[in-house]
Amino acid sequence: MVMTSWRNWGAGLLLVAAASLPARAAEGMWTLDNLPLGPLKAQYDFEPDQAWIDHVMHASVRLASGCSGSFVSDDGLVLTNAHCVLDCVHELSDDAQDLVNEGFVARKRDAEAKCPAEEVNQLEAITDVTAQVETATEGLEGEAFVDARNAVIGDIESACIGDQAGRRRCDVVELYNGGLYHLYRYRRYQDVRLVFSPEYRAGFFGGDPDNFNFPRYNLDIGLLRVYEDGRPIDVADRFRINRKGARPGELTMVTGHPGRTERQLTVAQLERVRDVDLIDTLAYYSERRALLWQYSRQGESAARRAQADLTFTENSLKVFKGQLQALLQPELIERKRQEELALRESAGDLESDPWAAIADAQNAYRELRDPYVLVERRRGFYSTYFSMARGLVRAADERAKPNAERLPEYQDASLPRLEQTLMSSAPIDPDYEATKLAWSLTKLRELLGPDDPLVKLVLGRESPEIVAQRLVEGTALGDVAERRRLWEGGVPAVAQSKDPFIQLARAIDRVSRDLRTRYEAEVESVETRNQAIIARLRFEKYGTSIYPDATFTLRLSYGEVKGWVENGQTVEPMTTLGGAFERATGVDPFALPQSWLSRKKALDLDVPFNFVTTNDIIGGNSGSPVINRKAEVVGVAFDGNIHSLGGAFWFDETLNRCVAVHSGAIIELLDEVYEAPALVKELQRR
Amino acid sequence: MVMTSWRNWGAGLLLVAAASLPARAAEGMWTLDNLPLGPLKAQYDFEPDQAWIDHVMHASVRLASGCSGSFVSDDGLVLTNAHCVLDCVHELSDDAQDLVNEGFVARKRDAEAKCPAEEVNQLEAITDVTAQVETATEGLEGEAFVDARNAVIGDIESACIGDQAGRRRCDVVELYNGGLYHLYRYRRYQDVRLVFSPEYRAGFFGGDPDNFNFPRYNLDIGLLRVYEDGRPIDVADRFRINRKGARPGELTMVTGHPGRTERQLTVAQLERVRDVDLIDTLAYYSERRALLWQYSRQGESAARRAQADLTFTENSLKVFKGQLQALLQPELIERKRQEELALRESAGDLESDPWAAIADAQNAYRELRDPYVLVERRRGFYSTYFSMARGLVRAADERAKPNAERLPEYQDASLPRLEQTLMSSAPIDPDYEATKLAWSLTKLRELLGPDDPLVKLVLGRESPEIVAQRLVEGTALGDVAERRRLWEGGVPAVAQSKDPFIQLARAIDRVSRDLRTRYEAEVESVETRNQAIIARLRFEKYGTSIYPDATFTLRLSYGEVKGWVENGQTVEPMTTLGGAFERATGVDPFALPQSWLSRKKALDLDVPFNFVTTNDIIGGNSGSPVINRKAEVVGVAFDGNIHSLGGAFWFDETLNRCVAVHSGAIIELLDEVYEAPALVKELQRR
Repeated sequence: MVMTSWRNWGAGLLLVAAASLPARAAEGMWTLDNLPLGPLKAQYDFEPDQAWIDHVMHASVRLASGCSGSFVSDDGLVLTNAHCVLDCVHELSDDAQDLVNEGFVARKRDAEAKCPAEEVNQLEAITDVTAQVETATEGLEGEAFVDARNAVIGDIESACIGDQAGRRRCDVVELYNGGLYHLYRYRRYQDVRLVFSPEYRAGFFGGDPDNFNFPRYNLDIGLLRVYEDGRPIDVADRFRINRKGARPGELTMVTGHPGRTERQLTVAQLERVRDVDLIDTLAYYSERRALLWQYSRQGESAARRAQADLTFTENSLKVFKGQLQALLQPELIERKRQEELALRESAGDLESDPWAAIADAQNAYRELRDPYVLVERRRGFYSTYFSMARGLVRAADERAKPNAERLPEYQDASLPRLEQTLMSSAPIDPDYEATKLAWSLTKLRELLGPDDPLVKLVLGRESPEIVAQRLVEGTALGDVAERRRLWEGGVPAVAQSKDPFIQLARAIDRVSRDLRTRYEAEVESVETRNQAIIARLRFEKYGTSIYPDATFTLRLSYGEVKGWVENGQTVEPMTTLGGAFERATGVDPFALPQSWLSRKKALDLDVPFNFVTTNDIIGGNSGSPVINRKAEVVGVAFDGNIHSLGGAFWFDETLNRCVAVHSGAIIELLDEVYEAPALVKELQRR
Repeated sequence: MVMTSWRNWGAGLLLVAAASLPARAAEGMWTLDNLPLGPLKAQYDFEPDQAWIDHVMHASVRLASGCSGSFVSDDGLVLTNAHCVLDCVHELSDDAQDLVNEGFVARKRDAEAKCPAEEVNQLEAITDVTAQVETATEGLEGEAFVDARNAVIGDIESACIGDQAGRRRCDVVELYNGGLYHLYRYRRYQDVRLVFSPEYRAGFFGGDPDNFNFPRYNLDIGLLRVYEDGRPIDVADRFRINRKGARPGELTMVTGHPGRTERQLTVAQLERVRDVDLIDTLAYYSERRALLWQYSRQGESAARRAQADLTFTENSLKVFKGQLQALLQPELIERKRQEELALRESAGDLESDPWAAIADAQNAYRELRDPYVLVERRRGFYSTYFSMARGLVRAADERAKPNAERLPEYQDASLPRLEQTLMSSAPIDPDYEATKLAWSLTKLRELLGPDDPLVKLVLGRESPEIVAQRLVEGTALGDVAERRRLWEGGVPAVAQSKDPFIQLARAIDRVSRDLRTRYEAEVESVETRNQAIIARLRFEKYGTSIYPDATFTLRLSYGEVKGWVENGQTVEPMTTLGGAFERATGVDPFALPQSWLSRKKALDLDVPFNFVTTNDIIGGNSGSPVINRKAEVVGVAFDGNIHSLGGAFWFDETLNRCVAVHSGAIIELLDEVYEAPALVKELQRR
């Protein structure tokens, strides 16, 4: 599954955005204000006009939790992936109703259930604000640069939002390594309700073994509906569904929100990603997988609690393993080295060497990484309670400051989403929390050492196990009302709180913020400034026929339905519903749900089920519509093949494939298996 | 702890032995027939005579389970590490008596308890058999080379053993990358009894956080006694214990059995170790750690069952992490590359390029590794039942063949040890076995893929969980009598067995043997033959002042008691008993046992406890005596510092340190805390 890698990148690796080299066929994640009209015309004889582009832009949406989707009915229905609604389904489940495994179908509107922490964003406008940002940061370095940049971005976003905080989201996006800054203005929707989620066995058929592989048989589809003022919204731009769906060789476009690519990292950065981040992250997620796997074996209730985290962890692990394998290929690193040398040579004399400066910053990163990731990025405090406490403590401090002086995630533009997350009604299980926290505290001690002052502060003379138990037993943060009280009470309420998680978050906040400041000053700002220099050199050399690295903003990629050749064998581009029944063994993860088995006879087993295309996608693209030139949905992207994992660093057209659910299968299954005639009708309305 | 890394190397990585470059001060693990007499005289004015050497050779012993030790009394008392007797202590424990955590002191002879699966080997003689091996293998390649070599070695060992199988062990050892083959003849002792093991809190104080670190406070000491015919043996050569122990600056020698170094791997091999073996092994052990950690949290009984495996796993993880960090330093790989180039240039024209041949073999290895490690090395079948079944199935088949045609581990020389292992009376817990097996079967499926024929053969249409449960519930291999019946019944008994583990082991045996044959033919034999060529070039260039890579045979290293400088801070070379009480927090792993706390007043807190030396040691050296020039025990080696982990690939004299328990602390604690006057008296007899 593609989605989660994006959340992951954010958690584990460095945040950078970079411009790419000239595109080959099908390569590229293009912003909607700079589509590759030339290649589209030349290769596919397709010439979208501005109306087509605007329509597609408005019909495509982003899920704030890290996915993509699209409007597919006039009444606010959003089509996305099952794995994109998994958190919501999980949060709506409890020991009494296990919606994750049983699935969820709202056959009437009043059965649609509010997702506690989801938000839908619809892109309304893109504005260039590069000049404003450059003016504000001119000549600055290190912490001063970071502060000035955050301040001007905060101002721009605030002005954009005005008094519409609940309905508008504004993000300044750094494109082409700081070569451009664009303001993305979204219509924000916070009342998002679950309409359909298949049983886990259908949405995740093949489980971890089949993940990132093909042939594939997943109904990785979820439906949400956007509400406002208690009613479904009216949608002006929405995609129609073409039930015949995609055919081999057909031009396909994917409009969605790829989260992160690193295609323009320098060799020094790639080596650091490989030797530091990916190796460490591989070990971390490997360990976490077994923790959750063994926790799940305690019984059905425990399994249900850990299921979403385990799915996410296994997916992440596969992503990072694939990325590491990609970076361990010496010839690919060598190609990057040659590209870098060529650019360096053509640059002539430079005032300073941006590559050397970036290389130095990698050494600073190596020193800072463990404490930064463990403390500021919370890896040493793997607990929902702690995340809530961190958010409440910081929100109190930050909201007391002028907007432009706050940490970006506490600026006005981000508060609605933050509040929604912190006030989520999703249940938090104390036993599960104690397990995750105890384990992560052992990581904290392992990596920083038992004599580290912060470790001593957190553990005192106790063990991770005892500390975790004491914190979990003493906290009231499981209660939304208590979190609401602290959110609204601000600094005094937080300062007076005796809640052990609040006290822990406060106790380590100074150290944690210092780590972040050092990281931003010694690593991030150095990279940003010097990558911008390299980006300008690249602009000079390659002109405008380039696309920026992914930034979890709307992009279009084009390609076609096409298999590939693996070890001399041709992999056909499409599977059928019948293939799922052939592959099923009856035992997880290769078991089909009972609903399918009992309705098998009614199904047309020749209907295409999953298919692959040459579209260039990555984590964050999950749930993206796959559309044809008439802007009809012919499929929904949900994964890449195993070769797509190297796509973080380069695009290999011969092997890299996007994996999607065919629109024909969606309609067929909703109709025959899930018996949801109203939904089928709504989806097929012209 | 050093021991377990050796078992680990054997489990995860390639078996090779290699010669080293000329030694610097303190570097080197010297065979006892080629001691560095010149440097010893020059640097320490020490000239051991042949009597000294013979005495030291006979007083040093090897534990077949993977450790070193020494005779320290006339009555067969063996001094080693607590972590070297941990398996025995674990096997003697059950829910009624938890010897791991409570410790064990046999204050009288009749309380000494037989270790179910331990064996002590005392080196008696070394003979050069190079000519015999070379004649038998001349001109052969691939599988033919492996078969011929195994056959001639089998013949030599059999002839050496004669009719003394129960009392004699004979191993042909490949030294200097096949430059030399030596026959090591040992006196074999299979009745080994536990005499003393401290509480886990004392033997493993500081636990995983302090492991491979210093300052240190571990009573990592265990005592065994060797019996024969029901009586303690009479020992002719044994070390005396010098209670005053080691002092800073003093010459120290370590005589023990370093398991494996890789100091003469080619760059292609080092890159393969780094990119394939170590990264994969890091992920594997990370995951296994969390599995065992979370399993342990079920309760005291579960924790006891998993304790030894968890300790071993955490230790392995630290070893592999350290080795990976060492190989990720580009300057060290570059140094190796330069050494290789220099040797290549001085070699002149060669018939064939041994480096290129080895590099090709690495590619073959990359293809073979996953199935080879999972199936033939049993990583996909992590279960004592399965190991037993594999041993019984193969023993039946192999023992039916002439000795020289058998797999080496089933040749006559190895049968007594094998039988002892397979007939161990140590209890096997079904729930624990089902957990480990289910987990490892998920690894099998993950790495080979669900469509792999072997995976389909093993899992059928079931899940790993169900298969593991079914196997464990159906097996009778927990019963020693049943294993005895199959061992003695040979091929017919095994063929008729309906035991599901026996049937599984039989079902996959063909595939597993084929993987091994391919590995030996395409990788191992190519490496062995070409490393021998490189070894000869090195001999020509550097002469005789070199030592061979470690081979789990007796070696002497020399050095001195000396701290080091870390980040500008001097690390003092010795700690005291008082320091342990200062470091103790009262909570594991920093809790001292009650016995210490209640006897604190009686202890001389100024007695040295642990110390570091510059001796060059590695996994397998655990339990080695640290002796002075009078051949008195002044300490017992149990660990290296964190820098010693790179010692697998090179020796860094400025940082690499051996960590030992001081002899003064051993006597003081046995006397004052463990109240074992008879033992103290026996240990101090002159």
